[in-house]
Amino acid sequence: MIAHLSPSCGLREKAAIIGAIEAAGLHAHVEGSGTCARILVPGARPAMKRVLLALSGVERVEASDSSYALVARSAEGDSGDARTGTRVRVGGVTFGDPGIVICAGPCAVEGEESIGEAARAVRESGAHLLRGGAFKPRTSPYSFQGLGEQGLRLLAEAGRREGLGVVTEVISPEVVGTVARHADMLQVGARNMQNFALLKAVGETDRPVLLKRGMMATIEELLLAAEYVVSAGNPSVVLCERGIRSFDRATRNTFDVSAIPLLKRETHLPVIADPSHGCGRRDLVPSVALAAVAAGADGLLLEVHPDPARALSDGPQSLRPDDFARLVQRLDAVAHAVGRELAQPNLPQAVRPSLR
Amino acid sequence: MIAHLSPSCGLREKAAIIGAIEAAGLHAHVEGSGTCARILVPGARPAMKRVLLALSGVERVEASDSSYALVARSAEGDSGDARTGTRVRVGGVTFGDPGIVICAGPCAVEGEESIGEAARAVRESGAHLLRGGAFKPRTSPYSFQGLGEQGLRLLAEAGRREGLGVVTEVISPEVVGTVARHADMLQVGARNMQNFALLKAVGETDRPVLLKRGMMATIEELLLAAEYVVSAGNPSVVLCERGIRSFDRATRNTFDVSAIPLLKRETHLPVIADPSHGCGRRDLVPSVALAAVAAGADGLLLEVHPDPARALSDGPQSLRPDDFARLVQRLDAVAHAVGRELAQPNLPQAVRPSLR
Amino acid sequence: MIAHLSPSCGLREKAAIIGAIEAAGLHAHVEGSGTCARILVPGARPAMKRVLLALSGVERVEASDSSYALVARSAEGDSGDARTGTRVRVGGVTFGDPGIVICAGPCAVEGEESIGEAARAVRESGAHLLRGGAFKPRTSPYSFQGLGEQGLRLLAEAGRREGLGVVTEVISPEVVGTVARHADMLQVGARNMQNFALLKAVGETDRPVLLKRGMMATIEELLLAAEYVVSAGNPSVVLCERGIRSFDRATRNTFDVSAIPLLKRETHLPVIADPSHGCGRRDLVPSVALAAVAAGADGLLLEVHPDPARALSDGPQSLRPDDFARLVQRLDAVAHAVGRELAQPNLPQAVRPSLR
Amino acid sequence: MIAHLSPSCGLREKAAIIGAIEAAGLHAHVEGSGTCARILVPGARPAMKRVLLALSGVERVEASDSSYALVARSAEGDSGDARTGTRVRVGGVTFGDPGIVICAGPCAVEGEESIGEAARAVRESGAHLLRGGAFKPRTSPYSFQGLGEQGLRLLAEAGRREGLGVVTEVISPEVVGTVARHADMLQVGARNMQNFALLKAVGETDRPVLLKRGMMATIEELLLAAEYVVSAGNPSVVLCERGIRSFDRATRNTFDVSAIPLLKRETHLPVIADPSHGCGRRDLVPSVALAAVAAGADGLLLEVHPDPARALSDGPQSLRPDDFARLVQRLDAVAHAVGRELAQPNLPQAVRPSLR
Repeated sequence: MIAHLSPSCGLREKAAIIGAIEAAGLHAHVEGSGTCARILVPGARPAMKRVLLALSGVERVEASDSSYALVARSAEGDSGDARTGTRVRVGGVTFGDPGIVICAGPCAVEGEESIGEAARAVRESGAHLLRGGAFKPRTSPYSFQGLGEQGLRLLAEAGRREGLGVVTEVISPEVVGTVARHADMLQVGARNMQNFALLKAVGETDRPVLLKRGMMATIEELLLAAEYVVSAGNPSVVLCERGIRSFDRATRNTFDVSAIPLLKRETHLPVIADPSHGCGRRDLVPSVALAAVAAGADGLLLEVHPDPARALSDGPQSLRPDDFARLVQRLDAVAHAVGRELAQPNLPQAVRPSLR
Repeated sequence: MIAHLSPSCGLREKAAIIGAIEAAGLHAHVEGSGTCARILVPGARPAMKRVLLALSGVERVEASDSSYALVARSAEGDSGDARTGTRVRVGGVTFGDPGIVICAGPCAVEGEESIGEAARAVRESGAHLLRGGAFKPRTSPYSFQGLGEQGLRLLAEAGRREGLGVVTEVISPEVVGTVARHADMLQVGARNMQNFALLKAVGETDRPVLLKRGMMATIEELLLAAEYVVSAGNPSVVLCERGIRSFDRATRNTFDVSAIPLLKRETHLPVIADPSHGCGRRDLVPSVALAAVAAGADGLLLEVHPDPARALSDGPQSLRPDDFARLVQRLDAVAHAVGRELAQPNLPQAVRPSLR
Repeated sequence: MIAHLSPSCGLREKAAIIGAIEAAGLHAHVEGSGTCARILVPGARPAMKRVLLALSGVERVEASDSSYALVARSAEGDSGDARTGTRVRVGGVTFGDPGIVICAGPCAVEGEESIGEAARAVRESGAHLLRGGAFKPRTSPYSFQGLGEQGLRLLAEAGRREGLGVVTEVISPEVVGTVARHADMLQVGARNMQNFALLKAVGETDRPVLLKRGMMATIEELLLAAEYVVSAGNPSVVLCERGIRSFDRATRNTFDVSAIPLLKRETHLPVIADPSHGCGRRDLVPSVALAAVAAGADGLLLEVHPDPARALSDGPQSLRPDDFARLVQRLDAVAHAVGRELAQPNLPQAVRPSLR
Repeated sequence: MIAHLSPSCGLREKAAIIGAIEAAGLHAHVEGSGTCARILVPGARPAMKRVLLALSGVERVEASDSSYALVARSAEGDSGDARTGTRVRVGGVTFGDPGIVICAGPCAVEGEESIGEAARAVRESGAHLLRGGAFKPRTSPYSFQGLGEQGLRLLAEAGRREGLGVVTEVISPEVVGTVARHADMLQVGARNMQNFALLKAVGETDRPVLLKRGMMATIEELLLAAEYVVSAGNPSVVLCERGIRSFDRATRNTFDVSAIPLLKRETHLPVIADPSHGCGRRDLVPSVALAAVAAGADGLLLEVHPDPARALSDGPQSLRPDDFARLVQRLDAVAHAVGRELAQPNLPQAVRPSLR
């Protein structure tokens, strides 16, 4: 339940409202100020509406639990323009700016040498952030599950050496603290999009969150998952379309390109795309990446591996470094065609990519 | 079953092979020549393979019924390059050329005035072909079912006046002859993609065929549907991705953008996209259209209506003429960014669009 | 649009209403009588509502095109009880009676001997109707497409010899007449559920129709497809759940068991199940068949082949005759457990099955 | 990777194999004995296969990571017979016995009175276990999230009073210990089926686990999720089909009835069904429950609420106590029809249900 406050609601009235909520055994979550001030009351029963409306300072009460008030675009003629949304700054670049952010790297951190090689390759070709998994959610208990904290250290070191911020996945509330010490951005993977304990845990950190759409999640469910993070106190969320599961298994997933403009309409959060998981086939990834940018994506998440044939996971969908370099050139052309550009990395002179 | 003939297979040997097939109560369908000569034997039992292999002139026998030999790209290093595929010429433009073909118009022909207005509007904004339904497949028997033959005449007349070839749907074998007399291209809709009697009927005409993917059809099923048309004698087929049905109903369908590069790899036929049905929402159509071109589509099918609010069908997904005009400009930019361009219409001087 | 007439509406008023509809270039379809009299006006624009309401004898006007007025259960407390629905009589048995009707036979009629053997086997084990395809809709043009009219003759002859009515598929309006001469019931297959020309064609015959749910069809779309048949004049329609296409391909389709009670609530038409296509695996068919009867199905459609390994189509999902015989015994037990029984065939003494 | 040991492999050889695995930085997981002895080596690279095969005592090495060796039925002619599978004993009843176990109660524990009332009602009608959620995974952060540990205490107390074991959900590794102190069986919900940290956590307890199929999970993924639990040391897992997400939203989910016999073939674990989530509509739940038992389910999970209209969650799919009582009678009849019966609760005389 959401109580929208009147602009004239004073501190004393606000305190009385909070008191009434807590007297009912509920938690009051104060958001915004001025004409946007509201108090969220998670788990309120319908009868609470009458109670709140009777209090001075409450303008109206929204009963629906299904609303995603914090991440929704305000109604006032907001057209999905990238310039009016939330900006999320990570390692020298900003998601939500006109500049499109490219995040690239291997599916999993496999060792010092390979992550170093991957980091150098993607930085030289124009990537802005380095991705790589240290804690891997795997369908089988017998598959490679990642190098854990050692992987985090290798990733962070590789990123530091190349001047790239790093993004990596968290798969359990218990490791959030550890991961947050090493990474610039915390990724919540598709299988964990409705792991609500994890959403709350990353919502309590001050690290930006990359939230991937579940493979069977509706747009509304994705926005409500983001609402979990933001309502826990962390406003820096970037959404990622990465393909949904459909009847058609010719591709690993079905990349839902229309989710990009639809999300841009519904939320002020930045929206990026993961073409690698989106189609699962290296030969199709470039076309899907170009499509995502044409459709309005604020960034891309791409799997790049120095030697995909030897990758411990997701080899078939990983680009080779030279494929990636060619793709970046083509992305630059399409970005300009739709009135945008690739982001300019804010790097120290020494490691500024030659390409840019 | 497919018997591939050796290059040296002579007429006498070919006749003997056909004789053996017909003696088994089967039909022999001779295709190609030289190193590509083959005889298709629909419905042959596995034992027929031995019979055929024993005959002089037969090089090898492909047993699988699931192959789409006629529409598949040959194996020899063919990379999906638009320049090496089949070209399908309709009303002065060519699907499969580097130039991207735009086909636009209302969902249904509703009357002389409105189709005339729509035709003029889409021609002025840069469309190359005029679309409009006269026989409409409708989910409910009580929905507007189209104007029938009268609609065909109005459509053809509107196209003629603006110098645009016309595309319209056929929904039953019985009307194929009638439609073929009025239209430049025969559309087989998503619901009829596996209406095999209809596929055979359009395969027996000399009109180009626009074959839309069924909303629950795999890529393989679409290619086999095209194989029905081509094996019936009509090589001029254009495939169209138009969205599949998934769990997510935030959009009418889920536009499967990766189907475009995947189809370009699998078949030499041109591949176009229908963003209007693909997402079913006017506000998302432009983004999806740009994405389709970025992903490699050879053309677009777009619903444009002079007054969408009054459309008898599909109003919510129809673009207004001015939206369409703006979209064409943006499509032109993206087409150039991926090394292509919009098709140049081959029109008489009098009606050459001012925009181009 | 549907104009519901007042009980007092006389012939002269009715004629005036029809006249007004036809004056608007529309067709008036008169249905029912007394308190249920109504006139369907396919394709009427919204403005027609005002015109109709102004006429004497019109009680109210239902604007929605999406209603399936003819096949819907009436609102008056009708609870889905099998005893209050439509009965469809075919070859001595009745769909919609408490007795459950079993229809069995091979996927395709393959020859005189095998269809005769199958007919005898299923009759001896307790089947009430014989199924078998003569015109087969096949995904590939190179697959066995059925024996055509010769197959119809063999099927009808095998049914006659065993005292079983026969059910077979129609795949095109052109063959409806031919099939109706040979078969007791016309099957419209899943791929043709929205082949509207075919629905109209079978709606114009006097043969009962078995309408299978499309693999991508919602419950509403299935009911609207049935509405096509009934509004064309044929009230004898039996619906069939046969599995839908989902992301899970461990089974050929996903048998949607809850569709059975849901359809029984929504429509007065009998509802049967096809477990063979529903799961596509012989080892799972018995469990799914038992589940369908427990869930309230009025009948079953089962593929039985004397020698599944040699079947020209659908071998992997066909039961062997002895499996089928065992299944019928188990179905009998479950039918009694839910207060029903297997139908008693109305056969001449000479061929009465020994088992019953 | 799985190294299958030869029957003659001695302790010294086993130690050498383990040593080689650990020398490669991997973990050796020893399972079974005699002809079934094997060592699981999670995350081994392909090259490890050669290493293992060279060691004395290793008979063969299974490279595939996708196998679910611990939960799979052995190949040896095992036909899915309920009598040969794993038995999981919870609160006086046994899943996997011929007796079908009924677990019923409200979606969420809402208060002392209501859970007490629900417990008494379901016990009187024949339920064997009490279900109720204390930690609720909810799509929206503003929905009722459960009473937490207080709810656990109320649930346990209600169960104790009625002599019913209790089942409740765990939603995070952090609460597993707390929940295990209060509950007889730990439920992992559909949204957490691939929450691998949670699977490992419940696998490290000695409480039986009820693992629900994810709404987007294939049969293989469900079995691999169970493999996580069992390979972590907990063999007592019961699987639950609860409906998958399909294109059809007439029901909340699509209950996949064929998953029941398919799972019974693939695994030795008991398989139960949740018709309440399976269809999401109270009026359809009884038919789906009967179908599940007819299809071979070893138990049912049913939502029953004393006053569904006031339920804080899942009211529309909850049965009223009298509906539930009638359903149990009908389930008994169908269970007998398929050669089974409802489980006999092992209760103290004082609270033995009157109905039995």
